[in-house]
Amino acid sequence: MSIKLAPELVALIDALEALPGIGPRTAQRLAFHLLNHSETVLTPLSDALNGVRSGLGRCAMCNSFSQTSPCAVCSDPRREGRLLCVVESVADQLAVDASLAWPGRYFVLNGRLNPIEGRGPFEIGLDQLLHVVKTLEGPAGLDEVVIATSYTPEGDATAYYAIDMIKKAFPDLKVTRLARGVPAGVEIEYTDLNTLANALYQRR
Amino acid sequence: MSIKLAPELVALIDALEALPGIGPRTAQRLAFHLLNHSETVLTPLSDALNGVRSGLGRCAMCNSFSQTSPCAVCSDPRREGRLLCVVESVADQLAVDASLAWPGRYFVLNGRLNPIEGRGPFEIGLDQLLHVVKTLEGPAGLDEVVIATSYTPEGDATAYYAIDMIKKAFPDLKVTRLARGVPAGVEIEYTDLNTLANALYQRR
Repeated sequence: MSIKLAPELVALIDALEALPGIGPRTAQRLAFHLLNHSETVLTPLSDALNGVRSGLGRCAMCNSFSQTSPCAVCSDPRREGRLLCVVESVADQLAVDASLAWPGRYFVLNGRLNPIEGRGPFEIGLDQLLHVVKTLEGPAGLDEVVIATSYTPEGDATAYYAIDMIKKAFPDLKVTRLARGVPAGVEIEYTDLNTLANALYQRR
Repeated sequence: MSIKLAPELVALIDALEALPGIGPRTAQRLAFHLLNHSETVLTPLSDALNGVRSGLGRCAMCNSFSQTSPCAVCSDPRREGRLLCVVESVADQLAVDASLAWPGRYFVLNGRLNPIEGRGPFEIGLDQLLHVVKTLEGPAGLDEVVIATSYTPEGDATAYYAIDMIKKAFPDLKVTRLARGVPAGVEIEYTDLNTLANALYQRR
């Protein structure tokens, strides 16, 4: 005689549970919150998801999310077209751009190499990166490609693969990675040994 | 020259941020996760929300979410129609039902009274409760209404209001609240004083 939730409600709870960091209890709580705030929370979220599904694609040049291809960033004439920065995600692209230290364009990978989870070079978009580098090398020429992946094992593997791939196709193209060192605002005492060692080796 | 996110993406981040317990950083992370897992996460969530919007309403008898009205619970002939349990939410209804100790029907309030947040008797559905009690009193008669709100200040206020309202309309109807006492599986030593005092006063 136990209560069966409506199938629509079960589907909603299941879909919310698929989000990262959301367990079964939170998914149920969120589902009831959505239903109890139909006008103010559910409708905007549903409309936003429908809008993203129908209106948002990938830019063919930088692989970022955009309504147009090329996107506003790639077609911005104020950006230095001879400089390309390769990042792991749109979130990383926003972080690099917020530093105001990069005048060039971007290419956004679909994450980092992780063969165990089925993310090989093709899945994260490295073949598309090579294609974009070829396209940019053509008319105007490229001065430099910066691989701005993180200094984690997966980020390192991604960078090594990308650098090797680009160097094989374009032996004369300058390919770099972000400098390693002590981050801003952190006490030397609390900086991890790996970071300190790299900051010492690459002192200037 | 900073990067502007596509308006669809901004709308999605804003809509996710409106969910309880989700801040701006988590909302952005969830939005990118949805976009990066378009087939496996975004589409099911979007479909589920669309399904809930179009297919799920409220049961006119118990105010729970249902495709039909009356819902499967209200129209279940195995449930004792002369017993009504009033709960604060569908989550509470599920909890009461999982205890297997309630053979009757339910009425689901839209939360607890909280005038400061604009939730008065009408907003939480107390007028609808009175209407349902009237309807049930009619043909078959009601034996008892249990107000199963929590023993919090808001839950107490809701219970007092509901009991007063029902007693005024139906002076002979039995209206009760859940027993207070020591919860199962908890050491007496660690039970809070308020709970212990009530368990002592109502000892049997």
